[in-house]
Amino acid sequence: MTADLGDQVLTPLNFLERAEAIHADRTAMTYHSRSWSYGEFAVTARRMAGTLAGHGVTPGDRVAVLASNTPLMLLAHFAVPLAGGVLVTLNHRLAAPELAYIVQHSGASLVLFDNEFHSAAHSFGIRTLAVGEVLEAGGPEYARSVDDERSLISLNYTSGTTGRPKGVMYHHRGAYLQALAMIHHARLGLDTVYLWTLPMFHCNGWCFPWAITAAAGTQVCLDRPDPDTVWRHLRSGGITHFNAAPTVLTNLTQHREAANGPVGRTVEVGTGGAPPSPTLLSELTALGIHTTHLYGLTETFGPAVVNEPRPEWNSLGHTDLSRAMAVQGNSNIVGTGIRVLDTVGKTDDAPVVDVTADGTILGEIAVRGNTVMLGYYHGDAATEAARMGEWFKTGDLGVMHPDGSVEIRDRAKDIVISGGENIATVEVEHVLTSHPAVAEAAVIGIADPKWGEVPVAVVTLRPGAEVSIEELIAFTRTQLAGFKTPKHVYFRELPKSGTGKILKHRLRELISPEAPQALSAIVE
Amino acid sequence: MTADLGDQVLTPLNFLERAEAIHADRTAMTYHSRSWSYGEFAVTARRMAGTLAGHGVTPGDRVAVLASNTPLMLLAHFAVPLAGGVLVTLNHRLAAPELAYIVQHSGASLVLFDNEFHSAAHSFGIRTLAVGEVLEAGGPEYARSVDDERSLISLNYTSGTTGRPKGVMYHHRGAYLQALAMIHHARLGLDTVYLWTLPMFHCNGWCFPWAITAAAGTQVCLDRPDPDTVWRHLRSGGITHFNAAPTVLTNLTQHREAANGPVGRTVEVGTGGAPPSPTLLSELTALGIHTTHLYGLTETFGPAVVNEPRPEWNSLGHTDLSRAMAVQGNSNIVGTGIRVLDTVGKTDDAPVVDVTADGTILGEIAVRGNTVMLGYYHGDAATEAARMGEWFKTGDLGVMHPDGSVEIRDRAKDIVISGGENIATVEVEHVLTSHPAVAEAAVIGIADPKWGEVPVAVVTLRPGAEVSIEELIAFTRTQLAGFKTPKHVYFRELPKSGTGKILKHRLRELISPEAPQALSAIVE
Repeated sequence: MTADLGDQVLTPLNFLERAEAIHADRTAMTYHSRSWSYGEFAVTARRMAGTLAGHGVTPGDRVAVLASNTPLMLLAHFAVPLAGGVLVTLNHRLAAPELAYIVQHSGASLVLFDNEFHSAAHSFGIRTLAVGEVLEAGGPEYARSVDDERSLISLNYTSGTTGRPKGVMYHHRGAYLQALAMIHHARLGLDTVYLWTLPMFHCNGWCFPWAITAAAGTQVCLDRPDPDTVWRHLRSGGITHFNAAPTVLTNLTQHREAANGPVGRTVEVGTGGAPPSPTLLSELTALGIHTTHLYGLTETFGPAVVNEPRPEWNSLGHTDLSRAMAVQGNSNIVGTGIRVLDTVGKTDDAPVVDVTADGTILGEIAVRGNTVMLGYYHGDAATEAARMGEWFKTGDLGVMHPDGSVEIRDRAKDIVISGGENIATVEVEHVLTSHPAVAEAAVIGIADPKWGEVPVAVVTLRPGAEVSIEELIAFTRTQLAGFKTPKHVYFRELPKSGTGKILKHRLRELISPEAPQALSAIVE
Repeated sequence: MTADLGDQVLTPLNFLERAEAIHADRTAMTYHSRSWSYGEFAVTARRMAGTLAGHGVTPGDRVAVLASNTPLMLLAHFAVPLAGGVLVTLNHRLAAPELAYIVQHSGASLVLFDNEFHSAAHSFGIRTLAVGEVLEAGGPEYARSVDDERSLISLNYTSGTTGRPKGVMYHHRGAYLQALAMIHHARLGLDTVYLWTLPMFHCNGWCFPWAITAAAGTQVCLDRPDPDTVWRHLRSGGITHFNAAPTVLTNLTQHREAANGPVGRTVEVGTGGAPPSPTLLSELTALGIHTTHLYGLTETFGPAVVNEPRPEWNSLGHTDLSRAMAVQGNSNIVGTGIRVLDTVGKTDDAPVVDVTADGTILGEIAVRGNTVMLGYYHGDAATEAARMGEWFKTGDLGVMHPDGSVEIRDRAKDIVISGGENIATVEVEHVLTSHPAVAEAAVIGIADPKWGEVPVAVVTLRPGAEVSIEELIAFTRTQLAGFKTPKHVYFRELPKSGTGKILKHRLRELISPEAPQALSAIVE
């Protein structure tokens, strides 16, 4: 009883306590035909915390979870911190050696798993607890209080598209504030019914497990976000919100169910992970799916940047609206700044300045705020490399528009440099996906003896569509400078990460050996 | 550049910085025919901070403001903390000695004033700056950074309905979080046009100056919230939100303009300061004014408790809806708890327990959260008297309902104890205002030789309405126990505070000398 007046720790666990106290009868979670009220959900989470404590989890211990978007995964977002532990969500789509690396690196002493992942969980050589042993335990309730709001709540391993995955350290304070930001930007409330399409193993589902609990809405768990299932929920499940990467949304708009027209109520979707193409945004609008374009990284608790829908957009036509929505936007409501640093092509010891806000000059995007990670777990060198004082350098390249909004042009490592010119592959990809035959496109650089690199496109077509390589190249040439035009087009499936990101490094491995020695010689 | 990653001070000044960076062209503020974009607003605030610094304001200095809800007052909410100062808003309706006491007690070294308050401002014997010297100064911009989020941002003096006003210490962190809570509960956004009816000198306008800036909405300044002016804005000003005490709302619903029907769009109103009667809530709903019932105190940055509108209320009839909305509700989204303590009639050294959550047993309401004050300025004894560990005891009496919502029955000092029975005056007042002839009602206790106290009612009638004392007493008797029924009814104006609260202590001073020696003898 010595705490100061008005001095309470910021932790998302506060939200569960409040929801239980005042919305005990509202539905917290559903899964298949079962549902849990907030009263039941909170008791289950505390019993689960009791089970963890009974199995030796003490403050600071890492607890891994191997599950899809099921009740186990959602409850773990509360139960693990209630036990004082640090949540380590595992991407179940990773290969065994990748999972083993993360478990070992995190130092997790215990893994909770859904039954389908039984053998993977048992391969780690650490203590295991199956979903039944955790959710149905019925033991004593347990809840530790959080003493330090900057203490760890979770580790989120990056997808590791280059090099080893890094363990991003999330703190209670950041998770709390990001949840409040998401509530504002997604307009979550008591009437929210949120469908779990975005993997919770990715940035703790952008902190939505905590945000929806704060708003006392309902979370609909889902084994797999396949288009059939998502469409079924959209048509008959009363869903008001979901989040998904653009590739998942593309699968929805190209599903046969899309031909049956709008969903019948406004569904709010946050999308990020890659810039959605203007074409995709138009198709979603036509389905009654209102999209907010978000941008962030694992290091920023998910969306650090929001393209806030402007009231004046109501009078825009489809094309202008999609164009307005295609930029990444601005700091979310709890962010304390975004910059585009003039570092491209500069030496490390050059003084760092911001690029001119002209929408043209390419620089590296940096963000600041309480929703930036503490650092990389056991990765001080990587942390120092990614920070500039209190600013986190994202590794993404973009421009600053005169209105203060940021637009991403490319990942720093994905940019193609051809004859000394920077080619933002995202720009080329958006032109390609605006072609009626193209479903998805990725542009990569291929080594070329004359230009250093030249861009090539890898494309998947819409069902039943046909187009020739020559036609597509000619189409892009009408809208882009010659050096940006793909020198070749490959038609093939695009390799993707568990979160739906196109894996360009994998694409380069696949395409480079197939490519002619000097594409430039062919097309010159 | 030594700050840790992800560790930024929580201060509402962050919201201005963000709004300027990304919504520079949106309208921040209007006043009569002038408007300020966020770009202009931020520059003006920083120039004003520069002027303050130039006049010797250094970190921690108190700066008083004597203004109605004008640009000076709104800008001071940013400029004073930008200069490192502590904002002391003065209630311009107070008498000269009351104002002098507050200025002296706060230790303010400087007072900013609107021209209409010229003579009052000059009576304090401290440095003065008129609005023109501050807003139009055009000097250099200035902005100090906040080092400690628990440092003072403002002092808010209580209305002092009993004893001397106390200086409630607001901190940056609490103001920041309360702003986020208000955004959520009032659903503020880019399309918000907020009318300044609630005095900003009261709890810093419930932190709405900062909340609307965070949402990058528009604030409409107002000299006086008289019903004519408010109605004009409602009809033609595109207003989406305002806040007001029930008495102000009663003036609106009884204005001739109300006869012209609904406002034509949904207007969101937060009301607090006193419980709105079910009758008032019904009348507002009929006008298209959607009311959220809030409860809080100066000590809690305004609304600590919100009666969140439930989706299922959409199917309720007027009467049931008004009844549901009449309870105070639950902790706002950033609150960390509300209790009803079983202290009524208990000795100080009895162990403190919570009352049973049965909606019946009266106890003292206590709240907890980051939006509780640091304490009273130079008032340690009062702070200690009001706290119980980290809990703030509100001095309000209420009950805890089984669903976790709190309902206020009375201020502890307003309760009438008659023959050993507690009479919650609010309950009696609600019955009185449900009579078609009654506009407003206040119930107070009058000393009585037999019962100790007996309740009497003071009532104002609706325009043109007539009712006799006997009729009103008989009417209340049909709905209340005999001991709760007023023993006399006085028809007269109700004395009110600057924020529209009925001043019951003043009423007791006015009524007691008029009252017969033993009312109980008359009515028995």
